[in-house]
Amino acid sequence: MRIYLAGPEVFLPDAVEVGRRKVEICGRHGLTGLFPLDIEQPARRMTAAEIYRACLAAMRQADAVIANLSPFRGVGADPGTAFELGFMAAQGRPVFGYTNESRSLFDRVTDDAGPLRPVGDLRFAADGLAVENFGHFDNLMLAEALLAHGHGVFMPDAPLDDPARDLSIFAQCVARAAAILLDSSAGRSVGTC
Amino acid sequence: MRIYLAGPEVFLPDAVEVGRRKVEICGRHGLTGLFPLDIEQPARRMTAAEIYRACLAAMRQADAVIANLSPFRGVGADPGTAFELGFMAAQGRPVFGYTNESRSLFDRVTDDAGPLRPVGDLRFAADGLAVENFGHFDNLMLAEALLAHGHGVFMPDAPLDDPARDLSIFAQCVARAAAILLDSSAGRSVGTC
Repeated sequence: MRIYLAGPEVFLPDAVEVGRRKVEICGRHGLTGLFPLDIEQPARRMTAAEIYRACLAAMRQADAVIANLSPFRGVGADPGTAFELGFMAAQGRPVFGYTNESRSLFDRVTDDAGPLRPVGDLRFAADGLAVENFGHFDNLMLAEALLAHGHGVFMPDAPLDDPARDLSIFAQCVARAAAILLDSSAGRSVGTC
Repeated sequence: MRIYLAGPEVFLPDAVEVGRRKVEICGRHGLTGLFPLDIEQPARRMTAAEIYRACLAAMRQADAVIANLSPFRGVGADPGTAFELGFMAAQGRPVFGYTNESRSLFDRVTDDAGPLRPVGDLRFAADGLAVENFGHFDNLMLAEALLAHGHGVFMPDAPLDDPARDLSIFAQCVARAAAILLDSSAGRSVGTC
């Protein structure tokens, strides 16, 4: 089973090493990890269009996705990773996800954007925008996409020391994905949205 | 032609009015806008799962998407909107997008995260992460999804006074989408990724 490994760790200076560790963890659970930097051609600098087409081809070949939905340069997940989660969900493939952030979206916005102002059922942050309050880790489209496939996001109970590189929550997610996918490939069905 | 209107304006206090204006602009160009809040049932507070399912059903019925990819609580686009762009792209539907931010991703990160450190071909921000430098408005997956459908993102030349509510760039995007889609529905094909 090929698992597309979406996430913003491709922007780390040691992205190749982090990707190698992610693929290794997948292998330990009988899964083949497809890490975006491995899909690209390291011998030369690819254009953005070439990277896009290579990632799309990998997603079309992949049996499922495991997305790193940790906050990226702001309150929410990396939009590139969110795009890929939506792409895989639309293909009807099982989508798995994790975050290395221990707080809910509501708590993060409250921490970052100040006290909330209630208007009816809604709560508005100091930036003038309502904050989703479903107890989810991020925007409901991401959270519910994961739940629609039979499980929620994997997240830590407390802050991690190195959230950009810690793979303990990823490993939990891989173990669960392997249990579901390999059981499924043995004849049982996996719920899709 | 039904156009799914993705974007974070659903979080504005006057979201219903902004949605009404967006649908009206679509109508002026012969398109039927599907605004997420109109899809929901205003008589009662829906659960996150119900909203997710309603949005997915609307996206499956839609002939195309116009996504508001303006930065949302951070450097990048709203991850919920990015998810929806990916969902529509995977369905092979034409995807259109705009941003009310006039700067490229590279310039925004440089402004927000400080001077960049070159390592080989890459440029790293003070947050320790590389910054994509393709001249795009956001992550390449979003930008190239739009380009793969034959046109780039619509964006302003200079900062807007009220980027959360200004619909001038949206209107440009609708006009172009209508020209392409209605021409296409008259017998010509639209490129897809």
